[in-house]
Amino acid sequence: MVKSALSVLLVLVAISSTFAAKYIPKSGKRVPQTLSRGWGDQLIWAQTYEEGLYWSRSKNKPLLVIFHLEDCPHSQALKKVISEDNEVQKILDEDFIVLNLVYETTDKHLSPDGQYVPRLLFVDPSMTVRADITGRYANRMYAYEPSDIKLLVGNMQKAKKLLKSEL
Amino acid sequence: MVKSALSVLLVLVAISSTFAAKYIPKSGKRVPQTLSRGWGDQLIWAQTYEEGLYWSRSKNKPLLVIFHLEDCPHSQALKKVISEDNEVQKILDEDFIVLNLVYETTDKHLSPDGQYVPRLLFVDPSMTVRADITGRYANRMYAYEPSDIKLLVGNMQKAKKLLKSEL
Repeated sequence: MVKSALSVLLVLVAISSTFAAKYIPKSGKRVPQTLSRGWGDQLIWAQTYEEGLYWSRSKNKPLLVIFHLEDCPHSQALKKVISEDNEVQKILDEDFIVLNLVYETTDKHLSPDGQYVPRLLFVDPSMTVRADITGRYANRMYAYEPSDIKLLVGNMQKAKKLLKSEL
Repeated sequence: MVKSALSVLLVLVAISSTFAAKYIPKSGKRVPQTLSRGWGDQLIWAQTYEEGLYWSRSKNKPLLVIFHLEDCPHSQALKKVISEDNEVQKILDEDFIVLNLVYETTDKHLSPDGQYVPRLLFVDPSMTVRADITGRYANRMYAYEPSDIKLLVGNMQKAKKLLKSEL
């Protein structure tokens, strides 16, 4: 009897110390933020533009920068299509460095025709922003709609043809 | 019999379409990267220095920037202590904007005595890097060891006394 009471006590101590080990905010437990922000959990995301440029140069792969906002319905719609398209995910994983940003950088080359979301810019490993690779819309040249996914795949192929081929 | 075969088929189709929906890299499934990188899954992390400065100014809270590397044992040891200390997590969550970086920024103010990890810098909401808030080591003034956690908490209190109090 004493033994079983003791083991119950031990279990209780173990449980309470497990619970004590985790900080929980007053407003309730949060889901940890991911670097992917839903654009492809299996891709390896750069955290910052500097990091993206570094990987782009060292791996000699173009960088895709996705500017978006989490509460923007156009961003959400494009995100759904891109994250669920296995062909796009495979190309991005194997042939690109990827970065998604919800804040603008200080680099004006990343906003050739203004700051808006969603906005997708390709950057060559030579660190040249490929302002020549555009979407379908004259007033927002780097915006894509979910129906533009084939155009986007074509643009990814364009971006893979590097400006300077190092031999 | 036909009915049960049909339902088995339906289940198989459902399973295979579920599997087909997810891209899996050749090298195998990856654990999605978190913005916390293990420094506190319940905290809200800024992604970039620009974003951290923005939140610091708009919420009038100091920013803590943690430079670290995932394969550095000193970073790992400090991360374990910081992420498991509920008092530290609570103060960081409620009174600070937090950012952890594995790449250096272009801002030299964030490396007053060089680039090394782990390195913890406080930034006032006035966007002034608090180079006056230092750890215990003369040669690496912004480094902390796991045993320095009380000093770090004291420094967090210092950082909370803002340089300019806006009334």
